[in-house]
Amino acid sequence: MTLITDTVNQIKPMSPVWRDKARRHLEQLAMPHWALGRLMDLAEDLCSITGRIPPATSRKAIVIMAADHGVCKEQVSKYPVDVTCQMVHSFVEGRAGINALAALNHVQVHVVDMGVCGDLTELLENQVIISRSISKGTENIAKAPAMSQSQAIQSIEAGIQIATELSESIDVFGIGEMGIGNTTISTAIASVITGQPVEVLTGHGTGIDHKQFQNKVHVIKTALRLHQPDPYDAIDILSKVGGFELGAIAGFIIGVSSLRKPVLIDGVISSAGALLAQLLSPTCCDYIIASHKSVEPGHKYILDKLNKAALLELNLRLGEGTGAALAMNLVEAASRIMTGIGTFEDLHVSRAIK
Amino acid sequence: MTLITDTVNQIKPMSPVWRDKARRHLEQLAMPHWALGRLMDLAEDLCSITGRIPPATSRKAIVIMAADHGVCKEQVSKYPVDVTCQMVHSFVEGRAGINALAALNHVQVHVVDMGVCGDLTELLENQVIISRSISKGTENIAKAPAMSQSQAIQSIEAGIQIATELSESIDVFGIGEMGIGNTTISTAIASVITGQPVEVLTGHGTGIDHKQFQNKVHVIKTALRLHQPDPYDAIDILSKVGGFELGAIAGFIIGVSSLRKPVLIDGVISSAGALLAQLLSPTCCDYIIASHKSVEPGHKYILDKLNKAALLELNLRLGEGTGAALAMNLVEAASRIMTGIGTFEDLHVSRAIK
Repeated sequence: MTLITDTVNQIKPMSPVWRDKARRHLEQLAMPHWALGRLMDLAEDLCSITGRIPPATSRKAIVIMAADHGVCKEQVSKYPVDVTCQMVHSFVEGRAGINALAALNHVQVHVVDMGVCGDLTELLENQVIISRSISKGTENIAKAPAMSQSQAIQSIEAGIQIATELSESIDVFGIGEMGIGNTTISTAIASVITGQPVEVLTGHGTGIDHKQFQNKVHVIKTALRLHQPDPYDAIDILSKVGGFELGAIAGFIIGVSSLRKPVLIDGVISSAGALLAQLLSPTCCDYIIASHKSVEPGHKYILDKLNKAALLELNLRLGEGTGAALAMNLVEAASRIMTGIGTFEDLHVSRAIK
Repeated sequence: MTLITDTVNQIKPMSPVWRDKARRHLEQLAMPHWALGRLMDLAEDLCSITGRIPPATSRKAIVIMAADHGVCKEQVSKYPVDVTCQMVHSFVEGRAGINALAALNHVQVHVVDMGVCGDLTELLENQVIISRSISKGTENIAKAPAMSQSQAIQSIEAGIQIATELSESIDVFGIGEMGIGNTTISTAIASVITGQPVEVLTGHGTGIDHKQFQNKVHVIKTALRLHQPDPYDAIDILSKVGGFELGAIAGFIIGVSSLRKPVLIDGVISSAGALLAQLLSPTCCDYIIASHKSVEPGHKYILDKLNKAALLELNLRLGEGTGAALAMNLVEAASRIMTGIGTFEDLHVSRAIK
């Protein structure tokens, strides 16, 4: 717990001084007041987060946390558990959705094995993925707690450590994830923390039909009834109905926040991880940028709880960090408007008539 | 009129065959069905527009149509008319909002003088802007028609010709504009074509206060009452309450459409130009991509009339083509997903369990 407590203690609110400096500059740009709207809001946030004008944004990375889930035994997903391991191989081959979008926006992709069931020996030996596996998948939450308290702490600590290690070479982070069954886990977490009913938050995940949907709701309700997680205790929730990648995401967010860098959340899973991070440190929300609003019905409620408005709304529901990779272009745009646009004075443009 | 008629006759609906081919490919990608949502819709559109898989999208340009407006004598804008000419200089210097965002997304910027009042001699001599000036500003629509019928035709033809010339070296176009007073003109056009009341469509443009807003509504209503434009006749509307850059935008859209290339509209002004293009050729809407929804209240109604859903909603209201430049990243992303992502077969990823 010491690493978690120390990290949380290092998280300071973003700087009002740098926000004011950014605003004063943006108000001088040769355009009607705040005419670039949310790009200007984002530019302010980035300056306030990083304590720099312009904010550093050139070195970007998506970190994909991957793990498997015992709850798949309850047929909550349309895809077999093998797909987690297969997709990790696809990420490394550079042929998945996240690779195409990350390459477009000059974003590195790092993959972390937090507890994938399949065989990753070759990738681990070649050191093309980061090895932090806690166990080959969690327990089935419909029958038992997902993991022990010490495993929950270990998964959060892994996220913090990865943030610290990558932070030397990266300015802006995005979160990706892979884990068949993890919308089930995320919905359970979101229901505990937001207080919304499971039926309202549950979505069709990878594309399940109505009968499978009913089963998914039933499984989540069974798990919540069985374990009664404490809605104010991130480690209790994580150990009872969480996942190793969810803990890593929460740890990663508080780690990045303690280092004063921005972190883009993606869909419903990384956002559920952010809810856990928010319980550990409400201040870490200052460092979170909501990249998009997904079609999963729970996402809206999670973003509301995080008090975040998404930048994009494109009916995405892939995960992997794809929405974050797309929104990286807006982060870079916000940074560019701090430097690339002249002021009324510079450009000899007449000001508004009083 | 011959050029306009010929161009309109060349516009064919986008290809259902290429749409089907694109869809079949996208459905094979290793991800849950249509999990990249609107990016996949856009990829289908681009294949259907261009008749190619992957669609050509690498060479991009924003074309800024600039002109002045006699209606500024009625104090409809917060900024003096000089700003149009000053901003054209800023575009050429590469220090305006559009330059920063276009550079980020590898988009060229071309500036066209359609009728700017100020002195552009140096820029014209150095051939750094395209010279198509029809007259140094329009007439004041509160007192007289904006231009003659032949000038209206000339402005549309100029747009067609610019599309044809640039088309040799450009795959995807975006429309920008500059012209103090042109939200007034665009609102007049939108009111005629959508049938919505002026009060509903009018916005605060460059940032006018309530009294100025009331005046703007009054001026637009006066012009519409005086000229009674025919809501089904683009040239009648353009000549009575239009602007030279609005005609050029309409011509540009039909020109690009006839060449089977996509054209991104930006805010309320380029979208009002698209309404004129739609009157000339309803089919040209197949080639239009709505980049963003602006804060100007009329934009929603214009996009509805064009039957377009915007890709972005970021509270932008700058114009210049800035929203189109941002959305170019999504166009490129849609193109990349056609080539950069493996199928279930390629990547040996298990399919959904039946």
